[in-house]
Amino acid sequence: MADERAAQDDREEVDYELDADLVDQILEAVEAADSARLIDLIEPLHAADVADLLEQIGGADRRALLRLWGREIDGDILTEIDEAIREEVIDALPRDVLAEAVRELDSDDVVDLIEDLEEPQQEAILGALEDADRAAVEQSLTYPEYSAGRLMQREVVTAPEHWTVGEAIDFLRAEEWLPDQFYHIILVDPRMHPVGYVTLGRLLSSGRVVPLRDITEDSFRTISVLQEEADVAYAFNQYHLISAPVVDEDDRLVGVITIDDAMAVLDAEHEEDILRFAGVGEDSSLSDTVLETVRQRTPWLLVNLLTANVAAVVISQFSGTIEAIVALAALMPIVASMGGNAGTQSLAVAVRALATKSLTSSNAGRVVRREAMVGAINGLFFALIMGAVGYLAYGSAMLGVVLGMAMLINLVVAALAGVLVPLMLERFNLDPALASGTFVTTMTDVIGFFAFLGLATLILI
Amino acid sequence: MADERAAQDDREEVDYELDADLVDQILEAVEAADSARLIDLIEPLHAADVADLLEQIGGADRRALLRLWGREIDGDILTEIDEAIREEVIDALPRDVLAEAVRELDSDDVVDLIEDLEEPQQEAILGALEDADRAAVEQSLTYPEYSAGRLMQREVVTAPEHWTVGEAIDFLRAEEWLPDQFYHIILVDPRMHPVGYVTLGRLLSSGRVVPLRDITEDSFRTISVLQEEADVAYAFNQYHLISAPVVDEDDRLVGVITIDDAMAVLDAEHEEDILRFAGVGEDSSLSDTVLETVRQRTPWLLVNLLTANVAAVVISQFSGTIEAIVALAALMPIVASMGGNAGTQSLAVAVRALATKSLTSSNAGRVVRREAMVGAINGLFFALIMGAVGYLAYGSAMLGVVLGMAMLINLVVAALAGVLVPLMLERFNLDPALASGTFVTTMTDVIGFFAFLGLATLILI
Repeated sequence: MADERAAQDDREEVDYELDADLVDQILEAVEAADSARLIDLIEPLHAADVADLLEQIGGADRRALLRLWGREIDGDILTEIDEAIREEVIDALPRDVLAEAVRELDSDDVVDLIEDLEEPQQEAILGALEDADRAAVEQSLTYPEYSAGRLMQREVVTAPEHWTVGEAIDFLRAEEWLPDQFYHIILVDPRMHPVGYVTLGRLLSSGRVVPLRDITEDSFRTISVLQEEADVAYAFNQYHLISAPVVDEDDRLVGVITIDDAMAVLDAEHEEDILRFAGVGEDSSLSDTVLETVRQRTPWLLVNLLTANVAAVVISQFSGTIEAIVALAALMPIVASMGGNAGTQSLAVAVRALATKSLTSSNAGRVVRREAMVGAINGLFFALIMGAVGYLAYGSAMLGVVLGMAMLINLVVAALAGVLVPLMLERFNLDPALASGTFVTTMTDVIGFFAFLGLATLILI
Repeated sequence: MADERAAQDDREEVDYELDADLVDQILEAVEAADSARLIDLIEPLHAADVADLLEQIGGADRRALLRLWGREIDGDILTEIDEAIREEVIDALPRDVLAEAVRELDSDDVVDLIEDLEEPQQEAILGALEDADRAAVEQSLTYPEYSAGRLMQREVVTAPEHWTVGEAIDFLRAEEWLPDQFYHIILVDPRMHPVGYVTLGRLLSSGRVVPLRDITEDSFRTISVLQEEADVAYAFNQYHLISAPVVDEDDRLVGVITIDDAMAVLDAEHEEDILRFAGVGEDSSLSDTVLETVRQRTPWLLVNLLTANVAAVVISQFSGTIEAIVALAALMPIVASMGGNAGTQSLAVAVRALATKSLTSSNAGRVVRREAMVGAINGLFFALIMGAVGYLAYGSAMLGVVLGMAMLINLVVAALAGVLVPLMLERFNLDPALASGTFVTTMTDVIGFFAFLGLATLILI
């Protein structure tokens, strides 16, 4: 696989990474305070790439660049900028540029832009909007964070359920205002309950007299405005949705979510999963300051310090044994480390399976048994290897037996802990990804040291 | 965050997990060999949920279910089924059902279905296709695995660049055949080079006389047929693409990729990242057998066994020191464990930043310096704590100093290793996610034990 990727890297030219030469040229233009050249260089870039540029250059360069080029910033760039530097960029913009930039955005993008800002910055942006847009944004902000209500756009194209293709096309032609991107027409009953949707492709390829109701899609699914955004992303991926109507508690249509927003959520969820798994606060970004980064990473290190001390206390109970056979001190970390690795493997599979809803109450029992079997087989295999190593390196058959037995015990514990800890968190409605490796490695450290030193005390002393 | 999620879980009803009661009822119907009831129960489910059902039940139940219900399987269900059980399901189907099922699929779905099958199964499916479809699928299979060519569908809706809106609409009306889902019309020049695209929404809302060229989208981007699929997924997410034309080496249009396929790739890439990070073979699934799972997990455990033995050799060099001060044996795992955790944090951030192209050659130097600073600050903080613990618990100020110094050294090494190892792999065109935690924790184990026991030997003995 690694070789394959290398080969693929050779044959492809585009990898979408910001060109390092271009970044250098831009920084030179900033250095020279040459704003005409800066505009020439940045103008061909996509908004998302401009945002990446702002994130990747240093703080001093960024401030200088914004002074020279800030009037060119538009709403699309603002929505792409990472939260870590968003406030800084907004503060650096002249009020009129900011107002202009946000007025061109759809309601969901404005919500996304301002939901994490401080009160005064929120006010500045809301104040720039027209009354109707402002009301729409404020309404969206009343929905809980990370809910479908925050994610949806309120601009929706609907048609009465009794219309024909011809009526729908005439309506679209006549309509002054339409969203930038839309892929379906949502059919609604007189009380604004969505009853189905029609893709624009079907609409275009059907005769004018065909009733819309006859060409609706099977994939139709509504989403509750209070649904958690992670579940919304899951539904889009699972059911291949392109857009989905959002409904309130009375099943009335209040907005629509499109797949590009769902994809962004899926990406953010994965970032959160991998960072949590490694014990990093989820809001981490390369643009964070050193102190910000320290603040994100310290809590789990503190937890780990506590648990490492528990393992130390376990070991110190056996100091007499270690004094008698000092080789035990060198061998005990092997048992602990193997347990930690096996537990992390099992944990990663379980956390991922819970996220994709493929580990459920229907198959949990079978999965736990499978993990126990895997742990036992791996345990036996590595017990034999390490038993042999123990015997050959230290000339003591019984030392080999102790090492092998401790290995077997710890690998079974590791495999079980890796799957049971996240299952338990899920049962208590907590995020299973919170079971960062720290928990499992603590367990395998403690059990590993205890089993090895305990057995050594019983058998060797 | 945990509390927030719990609250959200309460207020939402749908979480898209297969209903456990339904699964029980289905298994009862299988038990009773009641195929009419089975059809009633499964019929309302989405194809993706039927696939999940087949994956989640045990092997014996699955075979019994397929015997009773296999004739109902359609192509959509086949494409959703996890690779781990796909061969088994295909083998269980009567030939005529299989042929019927694949004939209704788009070319990209057939490719996806058969690319990992054995030769005879591939032949059985290809043989069921009509000649034109078979040729299209065989052509796609000539592109490298994990390339855009495998991902694209060959069914494309195009229009000559000089057409008007009216001409395009008349063409769509008259066309017998159109893909199930399409969102854009791709404009091509006479030599089939794509020159732009028009969304169906713009087409519908524009007057008949408007030239298509006047309403093309700014977001237009072509994708090379040899582009790696992970980069394709990145481009869709980064540039908010909904569909993108795929071109060959001569820039000629050969197919189109839609966002739902890109989203599935993004999801699979993330799965691979988190599993590799934890040292699991990437093709892992809950439907794998016990032996399959052992086979996936053993290689990294073997690597870890080797490296753990290196750490043991380091420790055994200091057996004289440990014999003299047995407390060192209890304290040394604390230093190693803190280093392992800090290194894993730094590694997760770096691997993720490389995947999102936010860690580049332009900012690598700054990021490495930042990590070193973070390591130093955390190192000082934990050095002070552990120094104090060492002094208070063991009454030796110098033991506290040794513990603190080793902690500081190891946390700086951990932070640097976490970012330098994946950067180096990337430089050599290897996948940075290969730098599973194992590498970094080995380094921090070895350095941690060496620094702590070495300093103890110098200062305390």
